[in-house]
Amino acid sequence: MTRPHTPLLDEVSSPADLKQMSDAQLAQVAHELRAETVAAVSETGGHLGAGLGVVELTVALHHVFDAPRDKIIWDVSHQCYPHKIITGRRDRIRTIRQKNGLSGFTKRSESPYDPFGAAHSSTSISAALGFAVARDLGGACETGHGDAIAVIGDGAMSAGMAFEAMNNAGHLGKRLIVVLNDNEMSIAPPVGALSSYLSRLYAGEPFQEFKAAAKGAVSLLPEPFQEGARRAKEMLKGMAVGGTLFEELGFSYLGPIDGHDMDQLLPVLRTVKARATGPILIHMLTKKGKGYAPAEASRDGGHATAKFDVVTGEQKKAPSNAPSYTKVFAEALLDHAAEDDKICAITAAMPDGTGLDLFDKRYPSRCFDVGIAEQHAVTFSAGLAAGGMKPFCALYSTFLQRGYDQVVHDVAIQRLPVRFAIDRAGLVGADGATHAGSYDVAYLSNLPGFTVMAAADEAELKHMVATAVAHDTGPIAFRYPRGEGQGVDMPERGEVLEIGKGRMIREGSKVALLSFGTRLGEVLTACEALEAKGISPTVADARFAKPLDEDLVLDLAARHEALITIEEGAIGGFGSHVAQCLAENEVFDRGLKFRSMVLPDVFIDQASPADMYTVAGLNAEDIEAKILDVLGVARIDSKRA
Amino acid sequence: MTRPHTPLLDEVSSPADLKQMSDAQLAQVAHELRAETVAAVSETGGHLGAGLGVVELTVALHHVFDAPRDKIIWDVSHQCYPHKIITGRRDRIRTIRQKNGLSGFTKRSESPYDPFGAAHSSTSISAALGFAVARDLGGACETGHGDAIAVIGDGAMSAGMAFEAMNNAGHLGKRLIVVLNDNEMSIAPPVGALSSYLSRLYAGEPFQEFKAAAKGAVSLLPEPFQEGARRAKEMLKGMAVGGTLFEELGFSYLGPIDGHDMDQLLPVLRTVKARATGPILIHMLTKKGKGYAPAEASRDGGHATAKFDVVTGEQKKAPSNAPSYTKVFAEALLDHAAEDDKICAITAAMPDGTGLDLFDKRYPSRCFDVGIAEQHAVTFSAGLAAGGMKPFCALYSTFLQRGYDQVVHDVAIQRLPVRFAIDRAGLVGADGATHAGSYDVAYLSNLPGFTVMAAADEAELKHMVATAVAHDTGPIAFRYPRGEGQGVDMPERGEVLEIGKGRMIREGSKVALLSFGTRLGEVLTACEALEAKGISPTVADARFAKPLDEDLVLDLAARHEALITIEEGAIGGFGSHVAQCLAENEVFDRGLKFRSMVLPDVFIDQASPADMYTVAGLNAEDIEAKILDVLGVARIDSKRA
Repeated sequence: MTRPHTPLLDEVSSPADLKQMSDAQLAQVAHELRAETVAAVSETGGHLGAGLGVVELTVALHHVFDAPRDKIIWDVSHQCYPHKIITGRRDRIRTIRQKNGLSGFTKRSESPYDPFGAAHSSTSISAALGFAVARDLGGACETGHGDAIAVIGDGAMSAGMAFEAMNNAGHLGKRLIVVLNDNEMSIAPPVGALSSYLSRLYAGEPFQEFKAAAKGAVSLLPEPFQEGARRAKEMLKGMAVGGTLFEELGFSYLGPIDGHDMDQLLPVLRTVKARATGPILIHMLTKKGKGYAPAEASRDGGHATAKFDVVTGEQKKAPSNAPSYTKVFAEALLDHAAEDDKICAITAAMPDGTGLDLFDKRYPSRCFDVGIAEQHAVTFSAGLAAGGMKPFCALYSTFLQRGYDQVVHDVAIQRLPVRFAIDRAGLVGADGATHAGSYDVAYLSNLPGFTVMAAADEAELKHMVATAVAHDTGPIAFRYPRGEGQGVDMPERGEVLEIGKGRMIREGSKVALLSFGTRLGEVLTACEALEAKGISPTVADARFAKPLDEDLVLDLAARHEALITIEEGAIGGFGSHVAQCLAENEVFDRGLKFRSMVLPDVFIDQASPADMYTVAGLNAEDIEAKILDVLGVARIDSKRA
Repeated sequence: MTRPHTPLLDEVSSPADLKQMSDAQLAQVAHELRAETVAAVSETGGHLGAGLGVVELTVALHHVFDAPRDKIIWDVSHQCYPHKIITGRRDRIRTIRQKNGLSGFTKRSESPYDPFGAAHSSTSISAALGFAVARDLGGACETGHGDAIAVIGDGAMSAGMAFEAMNNAGHLGKRLIVVLNDNEMSIAPPVGALSSYLSRLYAGEPFQEFKAAAKGAVSLLPEPFQEGARRAKEMLKGMAVGGTLFEELGFSYLGPIDGHDMDQLLPVLRTVKARATGPILIHMLTKKGKGYAPAEASRDGGHATAKFDVVTGEQKKAPSNAPSYTKVFAEALLDHAAEDDKICAITAAMPDGTGLDLFDKRYPSRCFDVGIAEQHAVTFSAGLAAGGMKPFCALYSTFLQRGYDQVVHDVAIQRLPVRFAIDRAGLVGADGATHAGSYDVAYLSNLPGFTVMAAADEAELKHMVATAVAHDTGPIAFRYPRGEGQGVDMPERGEVLEIGKGRMIREGSKVALLSFGTRLGEVLTACEALEAKGISPTVADARFAKPLDEDLVLDLAARHEALITIEEGAIGGFGSHVAQCLAENEVFDRGLKFRSMVLPDVFIDQASPADMYTVAGLNAEDIEAKILDVLGVARIDSKRA
């Protein structure tokens, strides 16, 4: 690979090396850092656009503030690649998001320069406020205590959690710095009234005028610039065009400034550092994907990318063998929506990720992107259901956790027929532990009246969409993983499944495997290997964790000496419901070799999904070993799976 | 009981009876409705202050709007007693919050006038927006579709979820009415910057002037007042002193008006009904407990009360036999805080309910009421822990659901030593299903690195507080129920428990009971009854659901023919972890009469906690029956528990 020429950046092994640089040198470092970020991501794939948008900010923050004593907290933190490069991790940046490599997000265990990890959005202000309060209370922090700085995007700011934190921070009045990185973009273009408000804040405000004024402010700053800072601050303040919403919440407001212009960033940050007393919000405008033409030109600002050619921007994606689960869901829902005008779709800032961009194109009046607002998404869906619609609330498993109380309180207790399309169920690969969809089966299946399904393959998913359309008596959820399907034949139409009934896959003897979800493919692979050893397991697909197919469970238990469940979820879910069924029906009284294969009790770091399932002990070879062990053919460490 | 004289109210059997009344008659109905509300709650106990604050609004809304076609959605809905009285439920109002009686909250299954139930706060705008959108999309609603009206308090408005809903509603621009009932009070006085902002909105604005002007507006309204409405609206609008925050979010703002003055309420609501096009927020000032002196005078506005004497306001509380768990927690924490200045406490608008009001009095700089903001509460706590403090985040089990993703993403994945004091674990009595703390054991115990405890009695709770103080290597939670302790002797100091170790309570034979939480008392009562029948169970207290005391589990299993777990939680929690331990250790292979007694798969309506546990099948007689059944001494329906 050709590496970019980065003479100044090459001298930066830690933020301390930025301290003595001139403003012009800092701008040059930023330039080189951008080139290095593009080069690195072209080799690894990963989040690109967000990092390119904060290259100048990253350099300016690390020049003006003193990390790790000052806590720089990147919201979501997919924009942290430039930060990682200049905080001692450049030598590993080409391992990012790979097995045993750097995380694609900030991570406390990775570096003292990552004081608070993230991956879900909108947590940074809460965390920074925690540091600020801990500082003022004398908390014992290993890296010491200085300023707490949250860098948060305009999309993330629309989440209720960020508002809660602003509300509390404005009340407490502690010194706290929030940099609002306004690129008019979360992953999709942002929606909501706050976004419109932010746009109005800088409507018609030409940067050029501001820039000239800011340069004037710089000239007012003597070295070490404390003297002139107050006047500069007043001047900058006078240039702000608005910000009353933030001021009403108790924050001082500074901005908007051009976040790609060091001549604005540096004086503003220096002034804030020298003079801030209470909470202050710096409103900075940036461009996602800035400085790399293919990213700037793309609809999502080059949000996440496969490996790519730096010159052309062309991504090097592996050819796909089967449609993705996401696409199967989206197209199936479109088919139903054509026949049923009560079907509507809700996403929380993930129209592309959930496939609902297709729905939005075809039926814009029935498609709702509510922003990063899972709590509202769930209860809004509940209201739609109460109002006689058939809402499909499409969320990633890991993000549905944000709306859990609403699932319990607004949907389940009221038995409202909200349909939950749960994407990214199970282990998700490069995004790592923070994005794993590990808990939804457990936390949904113990809710009275809930129906919980998992698709074993893409054809099953199509059936489950049809089943959810038809199920109008209570809430129903169906989960499916990230990535491609199994390549099975697709039915012309999805069929409505009988609620609470599984299906037999193959009849065997001695040991039965009851699968819930897409591990079924691994189960069948394991069976092939076992046939060679003279073992022929029975296999069934449960389809439903709730209501559980008790007849199937008891029948399998009665006809085999061993019964093994397998699922892509943590303990407490499908296997636990099977165990309860077996216990209550006195099956354990007379003995049954029962095992429940679930995700292990560790957070699994990023790798390919297959590698992550190897760590989890849920691949075909693990299933084979488990069967051999339970039948007494070979021993494995019983603690492993 | 002496009932108040309510001649006009007696003629109101449904909202239709309000339609033809004059404004003066409506004011009289409100007066009588207030008296009836006070009289009813004096007989039953319940939420009083909030209902008294919205008596006039209730009458005015039902006069101007047409429920159930128009959807009136009460946020939290503890203020719904007057609404219930005039929507056909007066004859049952004295059964409220009692077994088989009316719910203390709105409930869809109870009345078509309750279009969306609630009990947790801040859901109403999301739900109302759902109805508004369903209306415009032609949703098939049984009661038809008209206006969607959310009535939300200023405390509830501070929750992120309400902001998310406003942000989405302002964006969609649908006709939607939000009445902001500003009584400067959630349960405790509200905190946060939004509250200060609302105060500024009406600072120095004398009601008298507004009232005169509003009366002028009334005179402008001809019958049927459509003609003058536009001018009236403009006039009212001109009187508004602010509201820019809401206007920035895309809402029209009207107010503030005096919510106890029919002469303001009626013309404003009529104007809004006649003229509103997009989302509109009516800012109404009220007094919690209005019109009943003892409630007005109390610190919490007479929020919730036992039965009381109407004349004196004196509450008729049963004498307590033992300190409440809440108080034991709070006092134990105070003791530790005296010795360790790193201990701090976080509550989400529940200083009294969690007992942290004591902490706030003693150590105000270390106590944080963040408002109704559980998401922020959890991540703020995580930030405090990362900053070297020892945060105790005290929440009710049911409300911790609001911060579940933050528990996973910010606390568990980062292994930050946040201490979760989980109050109101298990079934809670009069608040019913919406407040049940049923799921926390399940949704916390499957998180890697989490320690999960449940106190068997108040002395155990004191030990668990000490244990949590000492546990600095990861997150730890301890749960305890609502209400009084068992009356056990209290230790002078809490002792630090060995992590992951249970304790033997009594040695017996044949059957072992492994209890997690305060069912231990019922277990021991059952054992006493069984002794008379010649059965002497072994009993142990697990203390920890995680890490599980596997040695204890396996030892009990080895030494008994039957092992029964019992917990105050849903399936997926303690019993499921025990089952997994038994399965992995091949105990089921050779046969064990294993049963797991958990909360049943239904939402249990309000009653006394003991009655609710009877429904749940988790009282002493149920335990006794389970043991007799498992030992083959007597049969019970195996499906019951």
